[in-house]
Amino acid sequence: MDLTREQLASLETPCLVIDMQAVRANLQSMQRAVSAAGCRLRPHIKTHKMPLFARMQIEAGACGITCAKVSEAEVMADGGLRDIFIAYPMVGEHRIRRAAALARRVDRLILAVDSPESADALSKAAVRENTGFEVRLEIDTGAGRTGVPLERAADLAAQIHAMPGLRLTGIYTFKSLVYQGAPTADIELAAREEGELMAEAARRIREAGVPIEDISAGSSPTGEAVARTGLVNEVRPGTYIFKDQMLCREGVARPEEIAVRYAATVVSAQHAEYAVLDGGCKFFATDVVPDAAPHFYHGYAAVDGRPELCLSRMNEEHGILTAESGATGLHVGDVLLLTPIHVCTAVNQQNAVWLLDNGTLTRVPVKARGMTV
Amino acid sequence: MDLTREQLASLETPCLVIDMQAVRANLQSMQRAVSAAGCRLRPHIKTHKMPLFARMQIEAGACGITCAKVSEAEVMADGGLRDIFIAYPMVGEHRIRRAAALARRVDRLILAVDSPESADALSKAAVRENTGFEVRLEIDTGAGRTGVPLERAADLAAQIHAMPGLRLTGIYTFKSLVYQGAPTADIELAAREEGELMAEAARRIREAGVPIEDISAGSSPTGEAVARTGLVNEVRPGTYIFKDQMLCREGVARPEEIAVRYAATVVSAQHAEYAVLDGGCKFFATDVVPDAAPHFYHGYAAVDGRPELCLSRMNEEHGILTAESGATGLHVGDVLLLTPIHVCTAVNQQNAVWLLDNGTLTRVPVKARGMTV
Repeated sequence: MDLTREQLASLETPCLVIDMQAVRANLQSMQRAVSAAGCRLRPHIKTHKMPLFARMQIEAGACGITCAKVSEAEVMADGGLRDIFIAYPMVGEHRIRRAAALARRVDRLILAVDSPESADALSKAAVRENTGFEVRLEIDTGAGRTGVPLERAADLAAQIHAMPGLRLTGIYTFKSLVYQGAPTADIELAAREEGELMAEAARRIREAGVPIEDISAGSSPTGEAVARTGLVNEVRPGTYIFKDQMLCREGVARPEEIAVRYAATVVSAQHAEYAVLDGGCKFFATDVVPDAAPHFYHGYAAVDGRPELCLSRMNEEHGILTAESGATGLHVGDVLLLTPIHVCTAVNQQNAVWLLDNGTLTRVPVKARGMTV
Repeated sequence: MDLTREQLASLETPCLVIDMQAVRANLQSMQRAVSAAGCRLRPHIKTHKMPLFARMQIEAGACGITCAKVSEAEVMADGGLRDIFIAYPMVGEHRIRRAAALARRVDRLILAVDSPESADALSKAAVRENTGFEVRLEIDTGAGRTGVPLERAADLAAQIHAMPGLRLTGIYTFKSLVYQGAPTADIELAAREEGELMAEAARRIREAGVPIEDISAGSSPTGEAVARTGLVNEVRPGTYIFKDQMLCREGVARPEEIAVRYAATVVSAQHAEYAVLDGGCKFFATDVVPDAAPHFYHGYAAVDGRPELCLSRMNEEHGILTAESGATGLHVGDVLLLTPIHVCTAVNQQNAVWLLDNGTLTRVPVKARGMTV
C-alpha cells in the first residue's frame, strides 16, 4: 500500500486502511469473470459491512447483495440497497419480525430456511402479518453447518412450496473449499463438485413439482470457477472485494491485490528482542490461530516489508512483535502496516476505517459492524 | 442466571446478558476488601466499557477509574467520570492531542510513560500547549510487554522529573499471575512479589530525588492480595466486576458469581451430532483458544447446565455445538445461555448488551466498545 510518511503520521492508529484503487480492481475483476460466464453476482457484504461498498458492487453490475443477518440487511437498506438476500436460517420471532418490516421497504428481500420448523414459523408469520415471503432453501453440500442434506432437499422443498405465505424461488449453499468432506487446494475440482451437487438438488426439487429459479453457490475461492461450470446462475463471494492472506494461500489472490492493511504504532521497545504495538486482541482479529492447521500463518498479521517480524502474542491492547534475528530494530513511534489473515473479522473489529483514494485519507464508520442479530 | 422462559424468548439473540445483582455483589466485595486493607481502588473499565458501570464503581467507593486508551477515556468523561488514569504509554501525536483536550474537561487525568521518547514527546506537547500533564511511570514487573525494567526505573524517573510540563506523581504495573517469569497458581506469592517489586521501585525512585506518591498495581486475580501487602496504595482490577471462567480457573471466583452470559438460539439441527447457534466468531470472543495451555477450556464458551455440550467450531456467524454423548438433543429455536471464558473480549464484541435487573431486561449500548485509539 502506497502511503507517504506524512500520511502514515496522519493516521489515528491502531486503525485499518483500505486502498480504494485496489478495491475497484478486485470488484471489476470478479464481476467481469462472473458476467462472462453468464452468471449473476450477489456479493456477500459480511466482508466490508458498509453500504458504500455495497453500492459500488451494484454499480459494477451485481444483481443484489447477500447479508448473513437481518440487522446487517437493515443497515444496507438504510444505505439505499434494494435487493437483499439474507443467507441465514430465519429462526427466532425477533428476527422474523424485523425481516417482515424490512421486506416492506426494499424491492426484493429473500429469506432463508433449512428446516420444516424454520419454514413453518416463517409461514405462520406471513399469514399473521398478511404478507408473503420469498424464500430460498439452504442445501448442505459438505461445509457441516447449516443446510438440509441433499437426500432430504426435495421433500422439504415440496413441504415449503405448500406452505401459505411462502414463495420458494431458489436454493443456495456455502461449500467453499470442502471437497468430498475434506479441504482441497484444487479450486476447479471443488467448484465442479459444488456446481454438480446444486444442479442435482435443483433437478430433484423441480421433479418434485417445485419450480425454483435461482441456484446460488460460490464463495471467494470458488466463485469464479463455480460460475464457469454453468450449473448455477448466481454466486455470492464476499472476501474478494478486499482479499487477504487466506485467499492468497488458497491460490486465488496475489499479495499485491490485498486492499486492506492494519496500521499500528510501536508504543514501547524496552528490549531489543520485542516491541509493543498499540493494538492487541481488541484490534487484530483472532479467529484464525497462527501456527495451526491448515495454513500455519506466521503471527496474527504479517508486517509489510519485514517478514522476519512476528506478531506472536497479544493482550487486549498490546501486540508483541518478536524478530527471528533476535532484534526487532523497532523504535517508539514507528508506524507499521500489517496484512490481515482474515479480512472479514479484521474489519468487524473496527468502529471505523480509513479509505485511501487518490492520495486522500478519509475516516468512515463501519456501519454494520457487530450487527449479529 | 435466573431468566424465565418468557425472558429468554424476549431476548434478541445472539446477545450478552448482564445480571445486575451479581454485578453489585462483585463490586461491593472487591471494594470492601481493598478498603479494609487501607488501599485505594481504581477499577479498569476495559471489562465493561460502559460509563454506567464506571459510575457504579465510583459510587461504591472507587477513587477514580483506569482506561487503556484515550478514546475509552473520552467516552467515560462524556459519561460523567472526572478522575481518569490512562494506563498505556501515551505515544503518538494523535493520542497526545486528544489527551490534552480531555485533560481540560476532567478534574484529574493521569497519563502514562515508560520510555524517554514517550516522556519527551509528552513534555514537548505540554510546553507547546502551555499546559501540564500528571504522569505515572510504568514499571515492568514480569508481564513482558510495556514498562521500564526495574534497574532503569530510577534513572528514567529522574529524567522525567526534570522535564518541563510533566509532573511525575506515581508508578504503576500490570503483573497479574506471572511469578518469577512463569505463571503461578499461588495468588498470595504472586501478589507478595508484585508488591515487593513496586515497593523497591518506589524506594529507588524516591532515593533519586523524585517524590512520587502513587504506587499502583493489582489485577483481578491479584488485586485483593496486593492491597493486603500494604506495599502499594492503589489497585486496578477490571474483570472482577463481571468475572468469568478464567477467574474461576485462577481460583479467585466461583461460577455462581459470574454476572454475564452469552444467549444464543439454535438455528439449525439437521443432524443428531451437532446443532448450529446464531453466533459465530463475530459474536463469541476468540482470544482464548480452547484446548490450549494453560487452562484447556472446553469449547469457546461453556453451555449452562449442559457440560457435555461443546462449542467446538465457529464460522463468522455459525457456532457449532457438539455433544460428547454423540447427540446434542437440541432443537431449532432452543435458546441457550453460555458462560464466557474471557468476559472483557466477550463484551467488546457487542454493540449493545442486555441488563437484567429486578426481573426487567433493558438493552443498553456498549459505548466504548472498539475504542482502540
